[in-house]
Amino acid sequence: MNRKLILYIATSLDGYIAKPGDDLSFLKLVEKQGEDYGYEEFTSNVDTIILGRKTYEWVERHIGTTHYDNGQRQVYVITRTERPATGKTQFYSGNLTTLVQKLKAEKGKHIYCDGGAEIVNELLKNDLIDEFIISVIPVLVGDGTRLFKSGRPEQQLHLIDVKSFDTGLVQFHYKRQR
Amino acid sequence: MNRKLILYIATSLDGYIAKPGDDLSFLKLVEKQGEDYGYEEFTSNVDTIILGRKTYEWVERHIGTTHYDNGQRQVYVITRTERPATGKTQFYSGNLTTLVQKLKAEKGKHIYCDGGAEIVNELLKNDLIDEFIISVIPVLVGDGTRLFKSGRPEQQLHLIDVKSFDTGLVQFHYKRQR
Repeated sequence: MNRKLILYIATSLDGYIAKPGDDLSFLKLVEKQGEDYGYEEFTSNVDTIILGRKTYEWVERHIGTTHYDNGQRQVYVITRTERPATGKTQFYSGNLTTLVQKLKAEKGKHIYCDGGAEIVNELLKNDLIDEFIISVIPVLVGDGTRLFKSGRPEQQLHLIDVKSFDTGLVQFHYKRQR
Repeated sequence: MNRKLILYIATSLDGYIAKPGDDLSFLKLVEKQGEDYGYEEFTSNVDTIILGRKTYEWVERHIGTTHYDNGQRQVYVITRTERPATGKTQFYSGNLTTLVQKLKAEKGKHIYCDGGAEIVNELLKNDLIDEFIISVIPVLVGDGTRLFKSGRPEQQLHLIDVKSFDTGLVQFHYKRQR
């Protein structure tokens, strides 16, 4: 099995991953007891997580870092500021492409990218995302942080699957065309 | 039956309705003999079309205006520049909200909005779009004209249906939550 870098992320229909002020409250629209939208199954095939520093700090404040670092997975927080590792979490301030190429060359389960937008767009510019699992929340939030910034290369995708849920969430699954 | 204003439009996965220079070539990725993605069925329930002047002129140059004006439907081209009507096509330079409210109050089939982005965002700012049929093309185009501009009010939607096609096109159908 090839080790893949998979983006698993939620966005509003109008393409925002957060409202202004890092407000993620619209995710609550689709919260439902017993429904994880495939998250546990997805993460069972993952042993490494890459995410941006802002996303990490948001989770640190609001959820707790064990959301990422459960003692088993390797977590890489991409940051411009060096910081000592904690548990299985490393703060990485080197070249992102170098890191991803190194990880993909190693054996292991898949690599999960949880955003944020800066990391996603840097990965896209370098054609490093192999699969996209994008959950579309049934809301137009109107403003905020866009998942896709402008000025990336064109990239054709292949639709693997699309699922809809009774909360109105639609989950796309694409892979990169080679 | 209430007369509804329905947006029926195609976008790339990264949210662009055209690449820079009004380039719509990515729509060709999903062209398939005998597959119209529900367009004929949709337009059979429509007797009025609203679209922006730039979109109209693009179709005028590349497809021909009978794409909109088939002699039966009423076509409103929203423009800042007055221009005499031709066939069943009127060039409207008045207030868009006034026009849409007038049309919705009249009896008739549904009203189809074909874009472009300026019209869509003006309609959204005034909460005038009742249903959204959005076809997502399996491509990241990287840059161009975004379907959703920033600075709109938040609006919750209700998912009516989602269809996927073997070309990889996914078609969402939402209605406005009241």
